[in-house]
Amino acid sequence: MESYLIHMNGHGDHPAILDVHVNIGGSGPAPGKGKGRKPRWAVRASEMSKKTFNPIRAIVDSMRVEPNPKKPMISLSIGDPTVFRNLPTDDEVTRAVKEALDSGRYNGYAPSVGYQSCREVIAASYSCPEAPLKAQDVILTSGCSQAIELALAVLANPGQNILVPRPGFSLYKTLALSLGIEVKFYNLLPEKSWEIDLKHLESLVDEKTACLIVNNPSNPCGSVFSKSHLQKILAVASRQCIPILADEIYGDMVFADWKYEPIAVLSTNVPILSCGGLAKRWLVPGWRMGWILVHDRRDIFGNEIRDGLLRLSQRILGPCTLIQGALEHIMRHTPAEFYHNTLSFLKANADLCYTALCAVPGLRPIRPAGAMYLMVGIEMEHFPEFENDMEFTEQLIAEQSVFCLPATCFEYPGFFRVVITAPEEMMMEACARIQEFCEQHYQGSEVAQDLECDK
Amino acid sequence: MESYLIHMNGHGDHPAILDVHVNIGGSGPAPGKGKGRKPRWAVRASEMSKKTFNPIRAIVDSMRVEPNPKKPMISLSIGDPTVFRNLPTDDEVTRAVKEALDSGRYNGYAPSVGYQSCREVIAASYSCPEAPLKAQDVILTSGCSQAIELALAVLANPGQNILVPRPGFSLYKTLALSLGIEVKFYNLLPEKSWEIDLKHLESLVDEKTACLIVNNPSNPCGSVFSKSHLQKILAVASRQCIPILADEIYGDMVFADWKYEPIAVLSTNVPILSCGGLAKRWLVPGWRMGWILVHDRRDIFGNEIRDGLLRLSQRILGPCTLIQGALEHIMRHTPAEFYHNTLSFLKANADLCYTALCAVPGLRPIRPAGAMYLMVGIEMEHFPEFENDMEFTEQLIAEQSVFCLPATCFEYPGFFRVVITAPEEMMMEACARIQEFCEQHYQGSEVAQDLECDK
Ligand SMILES: Cc1ncc(COP(=O)(O)O)c(C=O)c1O
Ligand SMILES: Cc1ncc(COP(=O)(O)O)c(C=O)c1O
Repeated sequence: MESYLIHMNGHGDHPAILDVHVNIGGSGPAPGKGKGRKPRWAVRASEMSKKTFNPIRAIVDSMRVEPNPKKPMISLSIGDPTVFRNLPTDDEVTRAVKEALDSGRYNGYAPSVGYQSCREVIAASYSCPEAPLKAQDVILTSGCSQAIELALAVLANPGQNILVPRPGFSLYKTLALSLGIEVKFYNLLPEKSWEIDLKHLESLVDEKTACLIVNNPSNPCGSVFSKSHLQKILAVASRQCIPILADEIYGDMVFADWKYEPIAVLSTNVPILSCGGLAKRWLVPGWRMGWILVHDRRDIFGNEIRDGLLRLSQRILGPCTLIQGALEHIMRHTPAEFYHNTLSFLKANADLCYTALCAVPGLRPIRPAGAMYLMVGIEMEHFPEFENDMEFTEQLIAEQSVFCLPATCFEYPGFFRVVITAPEEMMMEACARIQEFCEQHYQGSEVAQDLECDK
Repeated sequence: MESYLIHMNGHGDHPAILDVHVNIGGSGPAPGKGKGRKPRWAVRASEMSKKTFNPIRAIVDSMRVEPNPKKPMISLSIGDPTVFRNLPTDDEVTRAVKEALDSGRYNGYAPSVGYQSCREVIAASYSCPEAPLKAQDVILTSGCSQAIELALAVLANPGQNILVPRPGFSLYKTLALSLGIEVKFYNLLPEKSWEIDLKHLESLVDEKTACLIVNNPSNPCGSVFSKSHLQKILAVASRQCIPILADEIYGDMVFADWKYEPIAVLSTNVPILSCGGLAKRWLVPGWRMGWILVHDRRDIFGNEIRDGLLRLSQRILGPCTLIQGALEHIMRHTPAEFYHNTLSFLKANADLCYTALCAVPGLRPIRPAGAMYLMVGIEMEHFPEFENDMEFTEQLIAEQSVFCLPATCFEYPGFFRVVITAPEEMMMEACARIQEFCEQHYQGSEVAQDLECDK
């Protein structure tokens, strides 16, 4: 999702020359509109827009670096599976949209929470005996991003806080801060395949905690929680009476040998808003089709949260009706083979990349079990030339034309994230270049210490 | 746009029975999560969700009335030109989407403000010598609704106020209140074809006024401002140094003999955010394609507002990429004939309806000049049975199965709004039924006075 940030250069190049007749005032509301004083122009961007801060954009923009002109650029920075054109969506998926288009029946407004028929289809697709869903439990949104936005906006007031994974997807913080909601980060443990540090998690809860965000499978970690770990997370939420916002956009995207459990299936009492969408599993992130599934078997959310979501959905309405019109066909007719092929491809790349980077001096990759990412620890003490993950990844671009996101983007310095959706050859080439880079910069412990002392 | 509201019944039917193990607390944050006390479930919908209030939904939901079973329902309540299936979009428009789909190039993420190529196309389509636009002046959004949301969110802080037309489209108030922005209504004058009462407008400005919303052509009025009136509006904004949010979603939808002027073309200094989209002119409201055009020739918005819009756009990203991919073809290849045919159809219906309702005792229709609506004044003193426009329109449903929105939905009691997109025969039938209804209920002034005295 961070992709578009990188395209965005060149936007802010509007010169800030002031006309002599105008006067840009201070940061408060426009002065001088009171009686007697002559009004002056003083248009300022709102506080909300200033609080809306995308760390990835800020970090990427601050990386002023040219790739090595002798090596073609390999960008493994973007959580968009379509960029290499090697992972097209299934023909049934495009056929479904074409049919919706040809029918002429999907050009008008849909209800703001989505067509009833679509809500039924999504309910049926994600319902299971332990966590049954009906149409009224489904709200369609403009991408999983809007699902998260609505879920946060209905659950938390300004001044409350939410618990967010670290490392974690940056949108949670972006949205929360723009809404005036505080963010508290709980730790994930790389040595335990990125399980949650449950003690740390529970220690963060206070009377202002409005919800717990659980992202499984994880961006940026590619981790998948076991059933027993999910149960422990639920036990914390239950004990502390904190509802869960489950970001399950990578749901079902787990490699063979692993099993994905929607967290709601394991919950007996904790109310859950599960956010998902077509973006990743169906490989169409640009189509902006997402949803919220309301799991509330003890009626803790009750009418109030549902009604709140409905109200909020009316602000800008939901997703494109053509995609809504295609949803039933997509859910029913995408062949199992398509999902299977995507995952075998991703697993092969994950294995390849993990194995290759394990052999690189100074790197500690963590093996992923799903999604489309691999996190790699940098033994910074062996790369004393570089201050941090940002300098490391910057220099990797400059020398090797390989672009991986520094995990500072995910509040996790000392790591970088590799996107594993590129074609196999490209992945191999990228790993070879990373290896060359690390071999050139790696300092055995003694040399490293010497350099430290030089400082 | 209010259409989906009417479909929405049956959503709130989730029973609010509480499980014995849970306890829904007061309206503050969850109590009992502090040290020592046992936490209890107390999940409440946020203040923002409660402040997000759609008056049309509330009013329509409160109209508990059954249509006359002997007459088929004619609903002229919905600003969705597709509902009667008599106004399909043009073949070039659907072809454009099909090509975008087949190309496979529009499945990935676009920049959050839209593809550069699309921004160029929209800039080229709406640029003119007096108000030139470049790609960087265009932000694509999920419908005109999101355009308005972003424009408001960047221009106003909570506690500031905005100036909004009365009668006017209800979304302005809905969005403003949900953002904590105050709304001040300025009057439109029915006797002057709904021109703005400029004195009243200017009297509302204070030091907290963040922007002036001008909706031209107008929903619900169907009015189109003359060049000289627009210049007078600009003079107020200029004198008071208030930026304009121009809702021009019905731009170019004006009947022969009238001319539509984008307000930015007439402005020499007032900075303007013009909101538009495909919904109405191309008859595809469900596709959710909108835009903001930034007009700022004196650099009063400067980088700050542009940057704020960019930041806000990153919260949920923009419109569906398939529609973005189709935009260039749509803009270049939709035949002039298509626009022309839509407008002749609308004008014919407007004339028919205006003429028919002029002849009805107790009604005062105001002739529209564009868009898809006609406002009709009710001489309430001649309908003493009915308390207000809501009772009037309710009874019209009950007796005649004709559904028009009471203009209380637009903060303008004493009128109702007729949507003029229905097939001609249906419009005629509706007018005939309205006539029958009024003839049955009309009280000449003496009788009316008698009834008044009886009370
Ligand atoms: C964990 C996570 N949640 C949500 C999203 C947003 O999904 P969408 O593109 O459907 O808005 C992403 C996109 O990268 C993601 O990685
Ligand atoms: C005046 C006005 N502005 C904005 C909109 C919203 O347009 P969109 O459907 O593109 O969000 C409407 C829809 O009815 C409208 O009438």
